[in-house]
Amino acid sequence: MSVVAAGTGDYRPCVQIRTFTDDDWPQVWPIIRQVVQAADTFTYDPAMTAEEAYDIWVEKPPGSTVVAVEDGRVLGTAKMGPNRPGPGSHVSTASFMVSAEARGRGVGTALCRFALDWARGRGYAGMQFNAVVESNKAAVAVYQKLGFRVIGTVPGAFAHPELGRVGLHIMYHEFEPAGAPESHPR
Amino acid sequence: MSVVAAGTGDYRPCVQIRTFTDDDWPQVWPIIRQVVQAADTFTYDPAMTAEEAYDIWVEKPPGSTVVAVEDGRVLGTAKMGPNRPGPGSHVSTASFMVSAEARGRGVGTALCRFALDWARGRGYAGMQFNAVVESNKAAVAVYQKLGFRVIGTVPGAFAHPELGRVGLHIMYHEFEPAGAPESHPR
Repeated sequence: MSVVAAGTGDYRPCVQIRTFTDDDWPQVWPIIRQVVQAADTFTYDPAMTAEEAYDIWVEKPPGSTVVAVEDGRVLGTAKMGPNRPGPGSHVSTASFMVSAEARGRGVGTALCRFALDWARGRGYAGMQFNAVVESNKAAVAVYQKLGFRVIGTVPGAFAHPELGRVGLHIMYHEFEPAGAPESHPR
Repeated sequence: MSVVAAGTGDYRPCVQIRTFTDDDWPQVWPIIRQVVQAADTFTYDPAMTAEEAYDIWVEKPPGSTVVAVEDGRVLGTAKMGPNRPGPGSHVSTASFMVSAEARGRGVGTALCRFALDWARGRGYAGMQFNAVVESNKAAVAVYQKLGFRVIGTVPGAFAHPELGRVGLHIMYHEFEPAGAPESHPR
């Protein structure tokens, strides 16, 4: 699975988004470490080890992990899959991380668009984000632009290193029923 | 840790709530299996094995798992702990299961009160439920009575075996700051 953005206009900027392989890990782990150590956007343990990060980030089927690559350099990564097991498995979720050096170039937007297409293509009913830090306004704006709305906000649920306790949004994007309205994933 | 309800009026009905030990598992596993196979209240895999259930239900520190016992018989069980790692770990969560035979007697309410006291006593800022099935009106009513409010509802996020797709509530109970308003758990 890969998407070459150049020329299509769909996946800006000009990056390739493709399935993660273990060869990518030496470039993916520093991005994860950077994001979790900053501790301002993810409810992950900032002291997470590489092994713990691998287990959390690299999805097993039916989930998927991808990388956004430009000239062999990993700029960002995303994981996607069912949000909950059993009777909740028809709703998808996804997470995105972009290297600090590559921010502001639309890599996160491209990864989110990719994840939405991935989930729609597999018949999920929608995509839910469980814990979007409300002070992460760039991410919230991207998600809203792509069709997510804030379902609710848990007040003070995130301890931000500079801002103190800020809220965590639950966000949801319901998909248009594509043909069979009761279609189930897989 | 144990609470004897008789005479206190705080933990009705007259059940003892105490920390789970592995000796309880032969009575706890049938309750979990019954609840997940009914598939009408939990987003757990209905085909979950005993080993998977043990890993999910029996919390490691700082979390805790308890049982509600009457005359040596386990009527229900609860687990509690931080809702998220890292910058989200000051908010608690909990889950409750009551044997079908023991429902309507206040066991779930007693377990929820116990979990709230447990979390308050450890300095958590509040308790969040991430996925309360909206058709589970008895549970929603108990939670609201005990101080939870619905933060938001993800439409159709739960595939109910009889009702079809129903919503999942996110519920939250913010605790009064007990002394130091910036106190952290543990």
